Amino acid sequence: MKIAIFNDNQLGIVVDKHVVDVTNVVDWDIHHPHESLVQLMEHFDSLKDKLAKAAQEGKKYNIEEAAFQAPVPSPSKVWAAPVNYKKHQEEMNKQFNNAPRTIEELALFLKAPSSVSGPSDSILLPFKDRRTDHEAELGFVIGKKAKNVQYSEAKDYIFGYFALLDISIRGNEERTWRKSFDTFTPIGPWIVTADEIHDPNNLSLKLWVNDELRQDGSTKHLIYDCYKCLEVASTHSTLYPGDIIATGTPEGVGPIQDGDIVRIQVESVGEFSVNVKLAE
Amino acid sequence: MKIAIFNDNQLGIVVDKHVVDVTNVVDWDIHHPHESLVQLMEHFDSLKDKLAKAAQEGKKYNIEEAAFQAPVPSPSKVWAAPVNYKKHQEEMNKQFNNAPRTIEELALFLKAPSSVSGPSDSILLPFKDRRTDHEAELGFVIGKKAKNVQYSEAKDYIFGYFALLDISIRGNEERTWRKSFDTFTPIGPWIVTADEIHDPNNLSLKLWVNDELRQDGSTKHLIYDCYKCLEVASTHSTLYPGDIIATGTPEGVGPIQDGDIVRIQVESVGEFSVNVKLAE
Repeated sequence: MKIAIFNDNQLGIVVDKHVVDVTNVVDWDIHHPHESLVQLMEHFDSLKDKLAKAAQEGKKYNIEEAAFQAPVPSPSKVWAAPVNYKKHQEEMNKQFNNAPRTIEELALFLKAPSSVSGPSDSILLPFKDRRTDHEAELGFVIGKKAKNVQYSEAKDYIFGYFALLDISIRGNEERTWRKSFDTFTPIGPWIVTADEIHDPNNLSLKLWVNDELRQDGSTKHLIYDCYKCLEVASTHSTLYPGDIIATGTPEGVGPIQDGDIVRIQVESVGEFSVNVKLAE
Repeated sequence: MKIAIFNDNQLGIVVDKHVVDVTNVVDWDIHHPHESLVQLMEHFDSLKDKLAKAAQEGKKYNIEEAAFQAPVPSPSKVWAAPVNYKKHQEEMNKQFNNAPRTIEELALFLKAPSSVSGPSDSILLPFKDRRTDHEAELGFVIGKKAKNVQYSEAKDYIFGYFALLDISIRGNEERTWRKSFDTFTPIGPWIVTADEIHDPNNLSLKLWVNDELRQDGSTKHLIYDCYKCLEVASTHSTLYPGDIIATGTPEGVGPIQDGDIVRIQVESVGEFSVNVKLAE
C-alpha cells in the first residue's frame, strides 16, 4: 500500500495514477499528521483492509494535481549512514582530504528532524558561495519500538520505504551540521509499506539534475544494507515509531544551485522532483 | 518558577523544599507529557498566575521523596555546542590528537532526542572497555518557534534552564554517534523559567563523581554564550518549542564507570545525582 500525506495534510492511498482521500476512514487529525501517522502504523494490521476498501471508493485526485507533503512529517529522529557505498567512498576520498574513512569507523550520524521537507517544498540553499550537493538515497520509517534488534529480525520493524535526498554542504563543520539545514531532507513521494517491497536491498536508485542523469546506483551495493542499518541504529539507541533511517548515497554526487530541478526515482517506490532556490 | 515533571508524569511546581502537584490546574495529559509541556509553554503568560496560586494550595511532596523525570521528556531536537570553553578545548587537544579544533570551525552538533533521561534514571554504559566521560553543562529549552534570531533578541525565545549531562564516549566515530546512546543526556532537576535567571551567562557549574569535585566552572567562560548558541542554531535550522540546546562543558571532564554516582549542580537552577551502571 502507498500511504501519502497530501494537500492540506490529508491522508491518502495511492492507486495507479490517483491518490484517494481516506482522511475520514481512520482517526486522522490534519493538525497533527505526525502523531496520526504513528497511530496509523501502530494499528495498521487491523486497519489495512478498511483502508484498501476505502481506496476503491473514496474521492480520487490525479497524482499530478495533488500536492504531496513529507510522508513522515516530523520524525522523532533521523539516523543516516555516511559513505555507505564503496564507489561514493572513493569519489569523496578523491575530492576531499578530510572526508570519509569508512562507515565501520564513522558509524551513523543524525540529521535534524526539522530538516525534513516534502515533494512540494523547495530545497533552500543557505549559502550562495558554498558547494551544496545532492545525495539520492533510500529511506525508511520505523513502525514499532526497536532496541537491540538483530539483523535477522530487522525487517519486522520497518513500516515502509520512500525516496530521500540527503542535501549536504561540503566543508569542515560537523557532518550533522552540514546536513541539517531546513529543507535538507526532502522525502517522498509517499510511504510504500514493507510488504510491497520484495527486497529493499536490490532497488535501483536514480537522480537527475535538470534532466541530466547524475546518480544511477542500486541498493544492492550498500555496505550496510537496510537491515544492517537498523541493527546498528537500534543497538545504539532505542528506535521509536516515526524515526527515519537514511541509508546513504551511491556515487555521482555533485553540486546543485539556484534554479535547478532535482528529480529522484527509486524502483518500486516512486519519484518526485523539487526546485532548488536560494534561501531568503 | 520551577516547573517539574515527577512521579507518574505529573506536573509540579517546586517551592522551597517541596514540589506541589498542579497536574489538574492546566490541560496536562500524563500520557503525553512532552506535548503538554509544549502547550504549557505556548500559553504560559496566561497560565502563570494560576499556577503560582495553585503552588500555594495544592498537594505537597517533599522533593527528597519525589521521583523527578526529565523536565523536557521528548525534545524535538537537541543541538549541542562542542568545545565551548577554552580550557576544555585545551584539555581535549592535550589528550586526543583527533579532537577539537574550535567551535567556530565545528559549529553545533545534534544529540538524539532518545538519549534524554531524567534525575531518576541511571546512566547506562554501553561498553565496559571504552572511555566514557561526564560533561556538566547548562541546558535550556526553546519556548517559541525561532528562525534567524539575532543575539539581542535571543533571550525572548528561551523558556527556561536546567542542568544537563552530555555523556560522551571517546573514539573516532562521529561525535553525534558517541554522544547519543540511550541515557546519555540526563537533564533536570526541573526547568527554571528564564525570568528567574538574572544572567545565564554567569552561573557556576559543578560536577562531582562519588563526592570528588571534578568540574568547577562558570558559564561566564562560555565561548558561544547562551544567546549566541541560540542565534547560531536558529540561523541554521528552525527551532521549535521543546527543542533543547546544550551549551557545552568546562574543563575537568573525565571517565565514569559502573557504580559511580554523578552529581551536577548549576547555580540558581538546582542539582541532581544519577547512578552509573553497565547496560544489560
